[in-house]
Amino acid sequence: MKLDSWREGPPRAAILDFLSRVTAENGPGFVPASERIAVFDADGTLWCERPTYAQAAFLLAELRDRVGARPELAEQPVVSALLAGDMRKASEHGIDPVVEVLLDLHAGRTVDEFAALVATWFEVAQHPRFGVGWDALAYVPMLELLDLLRANAFHVFVVTGGGVEFVRAVSERVFGIPPSDVVGSAVEVRYENESGHSRLIREATLRGSPNEGPPKAVNIHAHIGRRPILAAGNSPGDREMLEYAHTGDRPALCLVVDHDDEDREYAYQGAAATDPGATSILDTATERGWSLVSMRRDWRRIFSGDGPG
Amino acid sequence: MKLDSWREGPPRAAILDFLSRVTAENGPGFVPASERIAVFDADGTLWCERPTYAQAAFLLAELRDRVGARPELAEQPVVSALLAGDMRKASEHGIDPVVEVLLDLHAGRTVDEFAALVATWFEVAQHPRFGVGWDALAYVPMLELLDLLRANAFHVFVVTGGGVEFVRAVSERVFGIPPSDVVGSAVEVRYENESGHSRLIREATLRGSPNEGPPKAVNIHAHIGRRPILAAGNSPGDREMLEYAHTGDRPALCLVVDHDDEDREYAYQGAAATDPGATSILDTATERGWSLVSMRRDWRRIFSGDGPG
Repeated sequence: MKLDSWREGPPRAAILDFLSRVTAENGPGFVPASERIAVFDADGTLWCERPTYAQAAFLLAELRDRVGARPELAEQPVVSALLAGDMRKASEHGIDPVVEVLLDLHAGRTVDEFAALVATWFEVAQHPRFGVGWDALAYVPMLELLDLLRANAFHVFVVTGGGVEFVRAVSERVFGIPPSDVVGSAVEVRYENESGHSRLIREATLRGSPNEGPPKAVNIHAHIGRRPILAAGNSPGDREMLEYAHTGDRPALCLVVDHDDEDREYAYQGAAATDPGATSILDTATERGWSLVSMRRDWRRIFSGDGPG
Repeated sequence: MKLDSWREGPPRAAILDFLSRVTAENGPGFVPASERIAVFDADGTLWCERPTYAQAAFLLAELRDRVGARPELAEQPVVSALLAGDMRKASEHGIDPVVEVLLDLHAGRTVDEFAALVATWFEVAQHPRFGVGWDALAYVPMLELLDLLRANAFHVFVVTGGGVEFVRAVSERVFGIPPSDVVGSAVEVRYENESGHSRLIREATLRGSPNEGPPKAVNIHAHIGRRPILAAGNSPGDREMLEYAHTGDRPALCLVVDHDDEDREYAYQGAAATDPGATSILDTATERGWSLVSMRRDWRRIFSGDGPG
């Protein structure tokens, strides 16, 4: 139950210690329930992001469908490279032409249609290595942590670099987090009223910057309006979110997931897709005294299918 | 307790009927708790907006302070007109120069400093006619409705044309609504990290459009991610929000507050500040079959100071 999938060790101890401190009513570190805000990155922090983000798998499936219906699209070099899984070739003229192709897939759809497409895909999609649905790819230790936080009157938010509409379509069933508690990258939508029936239509452009780096802190303020006291991430795109939580007036806990378990998951250095040359977030964590969570050492099991391990 | 300040009549009956319908588990109008989203405009819907919005009173007090410290500012025609309470003169060259003066007041402040300024002002500010603090200017019947909705597992949001940081600084104490459940107009903020301490600084520009009209529906989607089934407003700037709630697949209840009680409050036709020539929202309400709430007829008392009336 209570962090059962976490092995004894520094991160587990840091979590339990932090919770004791902020909930001890007469202690110096007490934080009122209304200010117990926790923010979690999604991909690579709450669930598996390799070999691709769930959203990328969805978009590729959608692109295949689109090309099936309109084969001439495959003549576009970016489209053919994406279909071949050659991301380097697809982005040889920068990331913008790739984003354009992907945003175009659902431009003109209502937001409800988009959510339904994601839900439908999610029912059947399987992870290429593990052969399970994406809802089985949430990290069990993190789900236990979310539960423990809620039990301690925390309000838990997902703050993702991914598309907010994609993550919202699955966040309740996968993470137990309702749509209104998801902050992410967004596309512009426009309001339409046709014969009295109003709808919101997706446009082919991003709304502001992607939710990575400094925008994560800015959007936490825009959406939540309070500085978090707990933040968890795994990539350079999470750095400012972690710093923002770390340097408030309250006690704070920052967790960084280290993907060091190629047997049970993957081994890689967390890097934001948009910022591959950045300083490792693991180095930042060590420098700042944030808790490094080793998947290999600290997690007894990773996925619900792993058994008690 | 339960809508005690509402007189018997069509709006009260519509509310109770709607709640019965959406909570009747085996009924045709049942709505699962996770989809019971209610959105409320603030100024003129949840609390008094005359003779000025609370936020306008705050900004004017701040402007007076600023001019006290730097008297040369009063030489600017817009500033002197604002100080004289002459809004027509202040905006003779359009609303932009007025907005510029007001945004400039807190540009460069951290978001925490801004919230503290609002809280300090709120402690001492008094309404010019009623001689009470602004927290006594919430409409008691609406507070009862918020409580009843929460008791029926609704998630209640404020969706205001006002500044989101201003409203968040007071929404918990006045409406019982936490900062993360307030959607409003916003200014740009920038992330700064100075010697390891990160802060968010207000800029002198709006972030996107003001949260009035179609943007209210768009921002409900951006922030909440679900279509509301209950919406309440009082001005043309609320029209699209009400339409959006009204035309989903679920049963919906739309309420429009009619300010028709000059004895106990004010009598005026609701009009968005930005759209004075618009069709009356009362006419729209009648056309669409939304519930018109007459403050004079339907509310036994308006403010907590009114007594049982």
